[in-house]
Amino acid sequence: MPKSVLFDRDEVIRNVTDLFWEKGYNGTSMQDLVDATGLNRSSIYNTFGDKFQLFNESLKYYKNFQNDLIDKARSSSKSPKAAIEKLFNGVWEEMNSTSEKGCYLSNCATELSNTDPRIFNFLSKNKEAVVKSFKLLIEDAQKLGEINSNKKAEVLANYLFSSLQGLRVTSMIDRDKEHIKGISQLILQSL
Amino acid sequence: MPKSVLFDRDEVIRNVTDLFWEKGYNGTSMQDLVDATGLNRSSIYNTFGDKFQLFNESLKYYKNFQNDLIDKARSSSKSPKAAIEKLFNGVWEEMNSTSEKGCYLSNCATELSNTDPRIFNFLSKNKEAVVKSFKLLIEDAQKLGEINSNKKAEVLANYLFSSLQGLRVTSMIDRDKEHIKGISQLILQSL
Repeated sequence: MPKSVLFDRDEVIRNVTDLFWEKGYNGTSMQDLVDATGLNRSSIYNTFGDKFQLFNESLKYYKNFQNDLIDKARSSSKSPKAAIEKLFNGVWEEMNSTSEKGCYLSNCATELSNTDPRIFNFLSKNKEAVVKSFKLLIEDAQKLGEINSNKKAEVLANYLFSSLQGLRVTSMIDRDKEHIKGISQLILQSL
Repeated sequence: MPKSVLFDRDEVIRNVTDLFWEKGYNGTSMQDLVDATGLNRSSIYNTFGDKFQLFNESLKYYKNFQNDLIDKARSSSKSPKAAIEKLFNGVWEEMNSTSEKGCYLSNCATELSNTDPRIFNFLSKNKEAVVKSFKLLIEDAQKLGEINSNKKAEVLANYLFSSLQGLRVTSMIDRDKEHIKGISQLILQSL
């Protein structure tokens, strides 16, 4: 009878996501994955396939985590504009003064989207989904008069997506919370 | 007498920069560097030191290239606001529909700034230099009345830095020029 391997699949994916987020895809070795998961190589290969497939699982996991974050901000606030503000203020409020990992999907975009069409397609679709969520929030806010309707919701949604990427990248190389807060406030003033 | 190796140092650095920009630091192997430069391993080691030192040379080269771009935009225009607009419009005007490498230094930030203090320090100082250049342009524009003085030049300069990072990352996963143009226009409207 083959030795059965028991482990929490979700926990493994969470650990693997943290690792790829910290070191990047190319900077993560198979040994790093073994160390982070506590699984041996054959268990990893048998359960998840190769390194890329495991990485792909982590992308899907983070995508769901990110979408949940937007949905929660939306459902937890009566004001759609306040929900948007909460997402942006979260960047500087939760900044770590000693290290900052940025956004996992932005990091993957800059590392891999230009050389791997699978990653480009995944991130391109994710961008569309996030822009769609922002667009719904903006349209709700425009209906309530919280955001001026003289700018198109879709253009504003694309702007928010881009601005959030910039804020996350900037927070990786400038750990002064006041700088990040100031940028965030200017972004939100455009609404 | 040892065999002498003749090559154009600047050309090697340019080729190496393109390679690291395309594949990332960890995604670039020593063999890739040999192929891109036409030099053998021992010539690379003897001339530049290890892979990291060669990478470091490429960062300095790109930093100078980027600073020249800002200086040229500044000196080629009588209007400091137009100089800023030229830099942002350049992102969508020069977009390549089939692939987009983003900004070399943003890509390095997301790949390495969190794990390598040398890269963090280099990029952090580069950010300060770019923000300083933006600040000078904004102050000039405020003196001329092109940009409203009710916002602090330094906050606006940080905002422009962050927005440019976001625009470059977004252009890697959304190759629709109209989207990138729309975002760029909204960024510039904040001035």
